[in-house]
Amino acid sequence: MNGPRATWIDGVAGELVPADDRGLYYGDGLFETILVRAGKPRFLQAHLARLDGGLRRLGIGFDASTLRADVALAVAEAPPLAVLKIIVTRGSGPTRGYAPSSPATPRRIVSRFDTTLPPVDSGVELRIANLRVGAQPALAGLKHLNRLENVLAAAEPGHATHFESLLRSASGDLVGGTMSNVFAVHGGRVTTPPVAEAGVAGVMRGVVLRECARLGIAAAEGRLTVADLQAADEVFITNARLGVVPARRVGEHAIPMREISSRLRSHVEALDA
Amino acid sequence: MNGPRATWIDGVAGELVPADDRGLYYGDGLFETILVRAGKPRFLQAHLARLDGGLRRLGIGFDASTLRADVALAVAEAPPLAVLKIIVTRGSGPTRGYAPSSPATPRRIVSRFDTTLPPVDSGVELRIANLRVGAQPALAGLKHLNRLENVLAAAEPGHATHFESLLRSASGDLVGGTMSNVFAVHGGRVTTPPVAEAGVAGVMRGVVLRECARLGIAAAEGRLTVADLQAADEVFITNARLGVVPARRVGEHAIPMREISSRLRSHVEALDA
Repeated sequence: MNGPRATWIDGVAGELVPADDRGLYYGDGLFETILVRAGKPRFLQAHLARLDGGLRRLGIGFDASTLRADVALAVAEAPPLAVLKIIVTRGSGPTRGYAPSSPATPRRIVSRFDTTLPPVDSGVELRIANLRVGAQPALAGLKHLNRLENVLAAAEPGHATHFESLLRSASGDLVGGTMSNVFAVHGGRVTTPPVAEAGVAGVMRGVVLRECARLGIAAAEGRLTVADLQAADEVFITNARLGVVPARRVGEHAIPMREISSRLRSHVEALDA
Repeated sequence: MNGPRATWIDGVAGELVPADDRGLYYGDGLFETILVRAGKPRFLQAHLARLDGGLRRLGIGFDASTLRADVALAVAEAPPLAVLKIIVTRGSGPTRGYAPSSPATPRRIVSRFDTTLPPVDSGVELRIANLRVGAQPALAGLKHLNRLENVLAAAEPGHATHFESLLRSASGDLVGGTMSNVFAVHGGRVTTPPVAEAGVAGVMRGVVLRECARLGIAAAEGRLTVADLQAADEVFITNARLGVVPARRVGEHAIPMREISSRLRSHVEALDA
């Protein structure tokens, strides 16, 4: 999925950032991953809105709409399929130490990667990660730069042979994938775990919940265990790059049906956004 | 505490790092903060040993002893008092995504800051942070780059008017300060919270536990609550830069005695390390 890259730092083409950026020191920032299809950044408004909400929660004073100009630069010469990775950090110092300086000058880093999308229509294989994710309501839902849990889960031996690893909380509730949100369908009802304690409030997760409502498919947040996935009629994962991705297997357990997943996948793919 | 800075990236003087460093993307790395006194990096072996242990736990293949040459460069022209900040990240890509690439080329960033040490002999004022830290045994103890919890605690309104904020777990047990470990003394016995679920295994914390044993002071890990601090004969915090720092207040509660804290402070300060 990686390919040639172009990067803009604070709107200027370049590949280097100061070593004292708080994003590097502390993971003090947020990011977005946006699919660019035929030069159009998909769901841009939703991505910027989520970023804006995250900036407020972290107390980083930055107007996310400033990024529209950067995004315009980045998509101007984009190949037919690309991914934008947008990082906004609290910027550099001026003081060393955890306390945010005031005023701070946030730093924005926009990178465009060429990408291809893997064939997933016949379903993908998921596994359950061994790592349990911690609960932190103050950070839950945010796509922040503290992602060591995701790294550790993706470093587990089984990860490379599966499409995605799903993470559980200490109590065993599913939280989501390392790079995706997870959904299960039971009797026509779509459920995805809440993100109030852990996990990321994915933009595609929000799109799916909204589009289910428009399509007359019952969909809601709710607790899901591994057993719930194994008992599900369908399981799918979502992220901004891949859209809706049906699962045909969770660990050793085959997932039988994929009607709603496929319908949602096609529907979201066809949205003019 | 911040001042003029000099930085070496992979042993070469410079201030810039590639924007795709996994330390920035994910906080995928570790750091050390080392006091340099009269050109000597204090407790260097203990810092490198802790870093090495952390690198193993994160699966970052890097020989921490490589840093000795960088440290030698950094201390060569150090002022009488300086702080070294050493960061080791898993490096850049080559692939985008959480899974660590193999082979990876870790990146090391060594910065030297001029510093001064605040007067603390008469005791400092601590507060209890509102933020509760999450439990994550897979990362607990490590001085990793996922430090948003520390940033949020240090951003709380009361932090700026106190020397340090102490953090509790969800269950109310004390974990440590944003930039320190915490100790309490009850009836001559020294206690500091375990770091198996959360917190950082500070090098100075380890020095104090070891030196207590040498001095015949009973010292052990143990659960501590805010009530335990308020009932304590003494409270002190530790970090590599400040050494042992006695507290004279925790929130509204005055801390009465500081004999053991003062003794430990002087003892550690006098160590030829």
